[in-house]
Amino acid sequence: MKVKISGADYTKFGELWEKSPRTLILEAVKKATEEAKIDISAIEAVYVGNMLSGILGGQEQMGAFITTVLKIKIPALKIEGACASGGLAIHNGVNAILSGQYKKILVVGVEKMTDYKPEEITLGLMGAGADEERQAGATFPGLYALMARAYMEKYRIKEADLAEPAVKNHYHGSLNEKAHFQNRITVEQVLKSSYIARPLKLLDCSPVSDGAAAVILTGVDSSIKLRKGVFIEASETATDTLGLSGRTTLTELPAVQQAQKKAYKKAGILPNDIKVAEVHDCFTIAEIMAMEDLGFCQKGEGANFIKSKATTLGGRGPIINTSGGLKACGHPIGATGVKQIAEIFHQLSNVCGERQVKNAKIGLTHNVGGSGATAVINILKKY
Amino acid sequence: MKVKISGADYTKFGELWEKSPRTLILEAVKKATEEAKIDISAIEAVYVGNMLSGILGGQEQMGAFITTVLKIKIPALKIEGACASGGLAIHNGVNAILSGQYKKILVVGVEKMTDYKPEEITLGLMGAGADEERQAGATFPGLYALMARAYMEKYRIKEADLAEPAVKNHYHGSLNEKAHFQNRITVEQVLKSSYIARPLKLLDCSPVSDGAAAVILTGVDSSIKLRKGVFIEASETATDTLGLSGRTTLTELPAVQQAQKKAYKKAGILPNDIKVAEVHDCFTIAEIMAMEDLGFCQKGEGANFIKSKATTLGGRGPIINTSGGLKACGHPIGATGVKQIAEIFHQLSNVCGERQVKNAKIGLTHNVGGSGATAVINILKKY
Repeated sequence: MKVKISGADYTKFGELWEKSPRTLILEAVKKATEEAKIDISAIEAVYVGNMLSGILGGQEQMGAFITTVLKIKIPALKIEGACASGGLAIHNGVNAILSGQYKKILVVGVEKMTDYKPEEITLGLMGAGADEERQAGATFPGLYALMARAYMEKYRIKEADLAEPAVKNHYHGSLNEKAHFQNRITVEQVLKSSYIARPLKLLDCSPVSDGAAAVILTGVDSSIKLRKGVFIEASETATDTLGLSGRTTLTELPAVQQAQKKAYKKAGILPNDIKVAEVHDCFTIAEIMAMEDLGFCQKGEGANFIKSKATTLGGRGPIINTSGGLKACGHPIGATGVKQIAEIFHQLSNVCGERQVKNAKIGLTHNVGGSGATAVINILKKY
Repeated sequence: MKVKISGADYTKFGELWEKSPRTLILEAVKKATEEAKIDISAIEAVYVGNMLSGILGGQEQMGAFITTVLKIKIPALKIEGACASGGLAIHNGVNAILSGQYKKILVVGVEKMTDYKPEEITLGLMGAGADEERQAGATFPGLYALMARAYMEKYRIKEADLAEPAVKNHYHGSLNEKAHFQNRITVEQVLKSSYIARPLKLLDCSPVSDGAAAVILTGVDSSIKLRKGVFIEASETATDTLGLSGRTTLTELPAVQQAQKKAYKKAGILPNDIKVAEVHDCFTIAEIMAMEDLGFCQKGEGANFIKSKATTLGGRGPIINTSGGLKACGHPIGATGVKQIAEIFHQLSNVCGERQVKNAKIGLTHNVGGSGATAVINILKKY
């Protein structure tokens, strides 16, 4: 069995106070089913990526919640792994198809965040961390700031270097009408923005966003020799200690390295076969480390690699975060990993207009939970 | 590929104020790995069933939480479907093995509930329901009370009939040293207990419990002809509307009927092949409806069937809830569906001592989320 993507899309991400989770889910699923040219009644199961519906909204059992919204009665369940929930939902959907259990699966990622008070959101997000971190009051910007400091010291980069992924991702976001932020920014603007957790400033951080994404996965018999379309070649995940205190390093994410090794091997490709990727840039330092952990450049070279414009549209590639990434497209937690698949699917389908990467045949998504405790790598290929 | 259960067990369930989630997880996993005679380092992935760690404990990313507790670094994720979270974790573990992704999976179900205030627990559990129900203040006892009233009116049964499953399950629980309650009760005691939501009284309701359960699933090549041990023959799930208001009936759970049909078909058996089953008796009315929805007796006959002692140890069978069920063994939400598998595994392995069902070769677990929005049926067979 092979897993094909039949359709995928996402809603506009942003501060969508006028839209309920129901509206967002319906919008995303409508787009994906229309693109796949299938009726919702053809779907056999729903896998949901979501993190905070319980803590923020008091709503659990999001599987049945979503089938109720969609007016269908089919197997449905929620997968949670903090900010990697969407990627994990894809991973489980892929396995369910490969197991022979279902042939047509809808994966929905959704998060409604901006209706809540900032302190409620912060506390909810801290649920992704270790309790010794929560008890010490370490927020996620704080944890990534520790990584940024360690990285800056080890590899002698400056705050201006940190800013590069944000500048690139806002540029890409300016070409994506669904991005939370569509304004371009400069390194100077990043440097002038307020400190959130030194050395990370406001414009080094991804925003709190609302949004939903949907992907339709179809099982295709492996005996069909003439494969056509976009397929998920590998879906791999790995974990590390929940808290930073258990790690052997602060300047890389071992879970990402483990997951990518398994994924490249399964897909039978090398890092330089990747032409386009959506990576988990929750903070600018995260994208810099991702370049290295994914094998796109040497250790310590991530910032220079991004600064060289290799990963900017028109660069030598891989082109990173054409959607705008978490930084500019937005980061509705459970939706992010599913949106990444939708964006790469559209890139490989050559329908991205102004932000299209030329001749993209192989793409990757990199979705991270917490401060690197969960990593999910998916590799997509166009036949 | 076939899915074998290599080991499974659960902690004592109860009001375990002196035990943290970490302690419970370690205890359950130690028991299961010892029984399976494997080292934790042989496990390739962890699937976690849990509902309320976020709402009650502020802790999400339970996959990486548990691998951190176990000091291992392997793929791990949380599955949530309210009170069916444990059953769904098993379902996903089974599919992951059938997909060829992993060969040895640990499924952990865990819930820590009794450390919180009753109103916090009630509110958390209401997260399994529809928001129109939450807004109306309908708690779960209230929703099942509506079903009980409709059932009593339609099938002309009395409150004394409702009490029968509780009396049986406390009797079974008295033979299980891990049960939350090990005292026997009478119909009179049930009838004299306080009303919680008319017609359901305190002793018609399952308790709020702490506990953990662990199951080790192993992939066995289908080409091996001489199968030996306990295998999961079918794992099927279905959903219905989240809220009762969307249902066509209040006297049965259509999701259970759909899931059982698929499961019996896949396992190639009939309801009367089942010799032992763990069913989701969150309230006494739920076990009565389950007898009918699972095909163990005719519609409207559930109460009489239980009253006839057919389902009590020594009865003609199927023997129901030898663990004591949710009512007497306890109901630590995410642990329940995993505990059900452990109990049936032990029954089929003929190691249940005083509460052993004779010659049990085929068993079933029935795990329900919310007021019937999610149903998971697993069928186990001993070779």
